[in-house]
Amino acid sequence: MSNKKTNKLKILNDPIYGFINIPNSLIFDIIEHPFFQRLRRVTQMGFSNLVYPGANHTRFHHAIGCMYLMQKAVRILRFKGITISDDEANALYMAILLQDIGHGAFSHALEHSIVEGVSHEEISLKFMQKLNDEFNGKLSLAIQIFEGKYPRKFMNQLISSQLDIDRLDYLQRDSFYTGVKEGNISSERLLAMMNVKDDELVIEQKGIYSVENFLISRRLMYWQVYLHKTSLVAENMLVKVLQRAKELAKKQVELPCSTAFRYFLYHEISSHNFDDNTLKIFSQLDDYDVLSAIKEWVHHSDKVLSTLSTMIINRNLLKIELKETVFENSYYKEKQQKSNLKYTQKETNYLVFTGKVTNQAYNTKHPIKILDKLGNLKDLVAASDQLNIQALTKPVVKHFICYPK
Amino acid sequence: MSNKKTNKLKILNDPIYGFINIPNSLIFDIIEHPFFQRLRRVTQMGFSNLVYPGANHTRFHHAIGCMYLMQKAVRILRFKGITISDDEANALYMAILLQDIGHGAFSHALEHSIVEGVSHEEISLKFMQKLNDEFNGKLSLAIQIFEGKYPRKFMNQLISSQLDIDRLDYLQRDSFYTGVKEGNISSERLLAMMNVKDDELVIEQKGIYSVENFLISRRLMYWQVYLHKTSLVAENMLVKVLQRAKELAKKQVELPCSTAFRYFLYHEISSHNFDDNTLKIFSQLDDYDVLSAIKEWVHHSDKVLSTLSTMIINRNLLKIELKETVFENSYYKEKQQKSNLKYTQKETNYLVFTGKVTNQAYNTKHPIKILDKLGNLKDLVAASDQLNIQALTKPVVKHFICYPK
Amino acid sequence: MSNKKTNKLKILNDPIYGFINIPNSLIFDIIEHPFFQRLRRVTQMGFSNLVYPGANHTRFHHAIGCMYLMQKAVRILRFKGITISDDEANALYMAILLQDIGHGAFSHALEHSIVEGVSHEEISLKFMQKLNDEFNGKLSLAIQIFEGKYPRKFMNQLISSQLDIDRLDYLQRDSFYTGVKEGNISSERLLAMMNVKDDELVIEQKGIYSVENFLISRRLMYWQVYLHKTSLVAENMLVKVLQRAKELAKKQVELPCSTAFRYFLYHEISSHNFDDNTLKIFSQLDDYDVLSAIKEWVHHSDKVLSTLSTMIINRNLLKIELKETVFENSYYKEKQQKSNLKYTQKETNYLVFTGKVTNQAYNTKHPIKILDKLGNLKDLVAASDQLNIQALTKPVVKHFICYPK
Amino acid sequence: MSNKKTNKLKILNDPIYGFINIPNSLIFDIIEHPFFQRLRRVTQMGFSNLVYPGANHTRFHHAIGCMYLMQKAVRILRFKGITISDDEANALYMAILLQDIGHGAFSHALEHSIVEGVSHEEISLKFMQKLNDEFNGKLSLAIQIFEGKYPRKFMNQLISSQLDIDRLDYLQRDSFYTGVKEGNISSERLLAMMNVKDDELVIEQKGIYSVENFLISRRLMYWQVYLHKTSLVAENMLVKVLQRAKELAKKQVELPCSTAFRYFLYHEISSHNFDDNTLKIFSQLDDYDVLSAIKEWVHHSDKVLSTLSTMIINRNLLKIELKETVFENSYYKEKQQKSNLKYTQKETNYLVFTGKVTNQAYNTKHPIKILDKLGNLKDLVAASDQLNIQALTKPVVKHFICYPK
Repeated sequence: MSNKKTNKLKILNDPIYGFINIPNSLIFDIIEHPFFQRLRRVTQMGFSNLVYPGANHTRFHHAIGCMYLMQKAVRILRFKGITISDDEANALYMAILLQDIGHGAFSHALEHSIVEGVSHEEISLKFMQKLNDEFNGKLSLAIQIFEGKYPRKFMNQLISSQLDIDRLDYLQRDSFYTGVKEGNISSERLLAMMNVKDDELVIEQKGIYSVENFLISRRLMYWQVYLHKTSLVAENMLVKVLQRAKELAKKQVELPCSTAFRYFLYHEISSHNFDDNTLKIFSQLDDYDVLSAIKEWVHHSDKVLSTLSTMIINRNLLKIELKETVFENSYYKEKQQKSNLKYTQKETNYLVFTGKVTNQAYNTKHPIKILDKLGNLKDLVAASDQLNIQALTKPVVKHFICYPK
Repeated sequence: MSNKKTNKLKILNDPIYGFINIPNSLIFDIIEHPFFQRLRRVTQMGFSNLVYPGANHTRFHHAIGCMYLMQKAVRILRFKGITISDDEANALYMAILLQDIGHGAFSHALEHSIVEGVSHEEISLKFMQKLNDEFNGKLSLAIQIFEGKYPRKFMNQLISSQLDIDRLDYLQRDSFYTGVKEGNISSERLLAMMNVKDDELVIEQKGIYSVENFLISRRLMYWQVYLHKTSLVAENMLVKVLQRAKELAKKQVELPCSTAFRYFLYHEISSHNFDDNTLKIFSQLDDYDVLSAIKEWVHHSDKVLSTLSTMIINRNLLKIELKETVFENSYYKEKQQKSNLKYTQKETNYLVFTGKVTNQAYNTKHPIKILDKLGNLKDLVAASDQLNIQALTKPVVKHFICYPK
Repeated sequence: MSNKKTNKLKILNDPIYGFINIPNSLIFDIIEHPFFQRLRRVTQMGFSNLVYPGANHTRFHHAIGCMYLMQKAVRILRFKGITISDDEANALYMAILLQDIGHGAFSHALEHSIVEGVSHEEISLKFMQKLNDEFNGKLSLAIQIFEGKYPRKFMNQLISSQLDIDRLDYLQRDSFYTGVKEGNISSERLLAMMNVKDDELVIEQKGIYSVENFLISRRLMYWQVYLHKTSLVAENMLVKVLQRAKELAKKQVELPCSTAFRYFLYHEISSHNFDDNTLKIFSQLDDYDVLSAIKEWVHHSDKVLSTLSTMIINRNLLKIELKETVFENSYYKEKQQKSNLKYTQKETNYLVFTGKVTNQAYNTKHPIKILDKLGNLKDLVAASDQLNIQALTKPVVKHFICYPK
Repeated sequence: MSNKKTNKLKILNDPIYGFINIPNSLIFDIIEHPFFQRLRRVTQMGFSNLVYPGANHTRFHHAIGCMYLMQKAVRILRFKGITISDDEANALYMAILLQDIGHGAFSHALEHSIVEGVSHEEISLKFMQKLNDEFNGKLSLAIQIFEGKYPRKFMNQLISSQLDIDRLDYLQRDSFYTGVKEGNISSERLLAMMNVKDDELVIEQKGIYSVENFLISRRLMYWQVYLHKTSLVAENMLVKVLQRAKELAKKQVELPCSTAFRYFLYHEISSHNFDDNTLKIFSQLDDYDVLSAIKEWVHHSDKVLSTLSTMIINRNLLKIELKETVFENSYYKEKQQKSNLKYTQKETNYLVFTGKVTNQAYNTKHPIKILDKLGNLKDLVAASDQLNIQALTKPVVKHFICYPK
């Protein structure tokens, strides 16, 4: 690689971490690749900016932040005597950079409407394999780690576990940009408490209060931010718009939209036919395709499509109610009837709907392991000095109903 | 207005200021208006996020921030004994909220290509007048203040002067989101130092070092951020893309784009024919129209259009050089010839170009006035204890040349 | 009061909150009083700066911060329609400013050695009464509120309850100055969620996650900061030094120290004889008296006194172990014997000792009340959607042993 | 060194930088040394906390912060290809840690009264030499660098120059703790712009705006904070107290104070007799000695001593006026006469006095060197695109007069 290139972009500014170094030219070239540059046009938090106007940060920035934290993690673990070769370190940087590259625009909405049955993890893997071809196999180790096939288990756990680098960055970043200060965690302290025992990622005992705080902060972010009722209703309305668009496409109704978006609207894409060509088109699809289509659909002759699109664009959303128990069918009927005074039944089917959201603050299946001073491992629940953590394993479910104002 | 509405959205979260209150339901309704909601889809800093990945904040957020600072300013001035009626305060809030509403997507690029000869201030005024009709004249006083026609001169100076609320917010906000800490100013201290003397906005003597710091920080932000060479080249490439698109449109070449964007590409819009209908269409135009069009033009058959569009989307920009003197014609020719090895002359005309940028840190025409302890007013330059401020009045010019790598 | 005085000090800078206004000249005069100025020389966190070098903030600063938050609380409650007269508001400001004025230097250590049996709350009340005399009864209402005798119960709860202004400020402030980010809470959001129902201070339902986060952050601050083993051992060593000094004083051994400190060392002060003269001398006692005495005692002929004093000054502390169960007597004996190799038995009695610390994250006796959307009150434990809060009511006890290295 | 020790204190929390690592056990032992621990009891900003209540940070914390920045500087310079051996790096850490160790309590006041004619730099050197003896010569290289005798000139410039590590830390730290946001600089960016050319420390061209901002911020901190009139008058009153105490001591009047302070009050210490024993006693002298003595002197029979001491302790200071020209003798006489109405002439001599303060924002004698893209060095003044820097070379002088209210 030319020297020029390595000098071109060595440092990135991050309002949270300060200066971020790009460790070498291979990483630099991956960041420069159009696949990765696409993430500049995909926001991390979708419609959360309708509630928290500062939350416009991108998946690009989050991925770069993850790489920064991974560099710190490697430095800390090495300092504690854990051997990590330069190749392994590099693989970790690539794996964390690329783990979320498969996220589409408004990811969760799209997964429920456009590319049903293909998870973003699968698409991330496809991207990595494609990049591995282009970069002559230099991503092989990163892919092994990402897939959990590399023998040193803690490396996969750094990428994907209940206390992984991804979560450390997104909680801190989302808290920062939304201004929800309570969501803030100390990623620096959590990293400093990490260690490796029997090839497993563990947290040293004195870090237990930080882990507890991390779980509670994450829980707060879920209910106060990620599942905030305004973003929830907006996202569900987007699902409805996309479902309607899909229906119209099946009937060959013309829908103004970008070439890439058209491909996914007018084809049935599943894991069976998600081939290289699909991947290439997927790599051209971002927030701009989806939102600019919806902006056009404001003027569409289909009433369902135009009504929902207008509501989204002007932030004049459906009303939403949340509660801990299922909504009675009679209440649902009542809202339907009220809607029918203004809308046809067909439209009402898109405007009055129910659903539920769940959050489990702590999952005992793949527990966080605590390393005590004597070198023994305990599950977090057992290590905690209170019932507190146990309490967090109970999934919390909330039901919602949406209807026109 | 229904009580429900006033309760719906009273507080907004700002990562910089904390909680921002919306003072009343009239202001609330203006913020809810689609004209204002459009600002959610217009970034404050255009292509600066290509250099500073955190800089994705919107004009919506900036306008809300300005309103917050204006509330502070009113509170401080009233505390100092300056009479400001509730109507005047409200007018100030509306004026500062709406002063920038006329900014289009990638404002500066568009002003040089699409809506030539119509400044964003003029468009802001048109929006205000339109809203004034809709809100039965409740914006009349705000418009008077905005236009500088209200007798109490300091109110216009709060909206538009060398030390206005707009600048206080954008410097702090842009510094925050880019992570360029030196750009940070203390808007709180500057507001605390504001006073009114003979109906003019003045700064109390002890605030002189803060003013000096404000000017230097702004100067730094210009050269380090706003005119950073990467955003500069990207913005200039966008101007070229739009000029090319405009040319093709004149020849009736088909250009995929949104309905609103199409209107501005296929019509010649100037101040003479910028009518109500134009305003309505303008109100539908934002970053999503422009960027999603450019994404489509990547596949366009016109080589100039597709080359520039691809470069922008993949952040694979032209090379740019900056210096304090004009580039020699021979150097320009040399770059053209080198370009011709790869591109046709027609393409080269769009890919090799020069230009200049200017910044004047302090303008003596409408000076910042300093109020000394005896109640006398001095111009800032005279009040300063050094030549420092005088030095800042000299405009700094830098010349640039862009060409293919 | 002269106008000059009101202008002399209107605004204070706070690194956390920004500018703090002193609301009026009565409050200003209280702050200027030597009783209150003494708080400039009493650190908030005692020996915590031996672990967290940034933690040198004073009780003065904390009290000023509380006043700021109280101003916010009054503004928010008034905005929600709760009537608070100007006299009541003023009384609240005075009560929160003065509630902790009775804290002595290294408060907890002194309470266990020097002024045994007189709580800092009692001394605060004495100070308030004395100030009330000097200010011609202008503090009467503040005292009523502080004592819980004013009929509007929520006012006392703002001063003293499980979610009072004192805690909101100290958690945020201690977190800020120690750099322990996880201790950070959003005092702004908690204040915004406050309301009054049936004259009781309540939290609106949507604030429940913030309350939960507040409790967990406080718990973390206890175990990670306030009860950090290094500050714990230092504080316990200080208790030992003071006990030894007291013993020597009883035997009329000469102890170099300040006049004020001498009074408390050479007299037995209890609630029975804590009169006006004692209060006056107490008002001259601060961190400087205690630490400068200990510095002198480094050179004292009494070995116990000089050994412990030297250890504290040079931060060469005893070793400390903590665990959840009581230390076996045999282990204690073992440590004593080891100490006897180097020290006499008399000295060992001061150098080897055990103790325990307790923290209860949430107390059900005076519960935090949650106000649901229908206007009903629930206890926090019942309102929570998990067992989480219930779990926090269990007191956590840790036992410690200290001995020479 | 035992392994235990190295593990005891590896990480320190800094509210500004986050976690600070102590690089090795030698550095750890120096920090643990009583000489260095004394800095925990010396505040960085003296009486500035009378104006900025948050400014209680210590010289200990500042020195640790400098070590952190030096670690960064070494990492950055090595990354740029500058060879720095591990021994050199260690010497730099020790030199920066210890460069200010010679500062006494209320340093500037003491230098004008107690240890006249011995600069804190000389005392720092004495401490280093003493430590070098104790640590078997391991500080020799650090001392060479500190004294400017090591051939690699840039190393001394990192310790002491117009843009040294000391300034980078104290500006950022003092700005942080006072809450004066405009004083904030980006030490991270300035470090990132550092380079070495011909063994000189230089700043790369693109860092020029940051340097400019650094100079302006420093200037602002001088006039707004360091030379704030309230701290100025307090510090000058302290000089007067100490001068009076010295006078009384000469007459063998008894002054209650600590043993260490007594030594300096009752002896004439100059560079001629500042021997090892003096150094040992100096190492026991800190803020606690000085302030606790002044607290005792409140009750002293000498009226001058007690008047000034009472004023300082109760923050009931003399009035101060500042202006750019010398105060007329007639004005001074007038203030003396007014003082004589209340005080004797002897007392008035201590209560009415004049003086001046100076600040030069940029000194051309040892200029900051700018490295342009072609590898050429320019002085900062020449490299700047404006007259701005030149203007900053002019010293600004302000005269003051103090007198009783």
